[in-house]
Amino acid sequence: MGGYTLTIPTEADLNEKALRLLREDAKKIEQLIAVQLENLTLPKCPLYEEVLDTQMFGLSREIDFAVRLGMITREQGQQVILDLEKKLADLYATLLPSSVGE
Amino acid sequence: MGGYTLTIPTEADLNEKALRLLREDAKKIEQLIAVQLENLTLPKCPLYEEVLDTQMFGLSREIDFAVRLGMITREQGQQVILDLEKKLADLYATLLPSSVGE
Repeated sequence: MGGYTLTIPTEADLNEKALRLLREDAKKIEQLIAVQLENLTLPKCPLYEEVLDTQMFGLSREIDFAVRLGMITREQGQQVILDLEKKLADLYATLLPSSVGE
Repeated sequence: MGGYTLTIPTEADLNEKALRLLREDAKKIEQLIAVQLENLTLPKCPLYEEVLDTQMFGLSREIDFAVRLGMITREQGQQVILDLEKKLADLYATLLPSSVGE
């Protein structure tokens, strides 16, 4: 019948693992957006915005859950979002230099 | 400066708390959908479908995160989704009896 074993590590381990998972998910969003931009889907395109909004919503739900569960602090969660937003801004600047400052 | 204290309870506590939070979020989606249905937004309306899709995506991201973190089993996560889907089906049957079986 299979079955799972739930192994709960220490407090510091859990905090670290939660942050690692969240950063992995942020990285996936960054990669997804990079692929979209490389395929010339413009940031002002509704489809692009919808994909980004949905993905950011999903990540924010994960972060909110991790905070409520006591795995990470709200500040740590906000930092994951801020880091991703900075990465996306860098992507725009690299892939769409003409759009910077618009 | 405030600051958070991360208190990590026992394995059983964490599993219970994670499931409680997920069920609360499922309940919120159910209530949101109930309000939409009561305001005569039909299940086949694109706006309704988009709201439901986005909310279900957010919940599935939370559940996936909880599973990867070792807080709940994949089966427990699937049960939260199945329970919500059953509640939504009941809502349709109650609020939109004419649409059942279509």
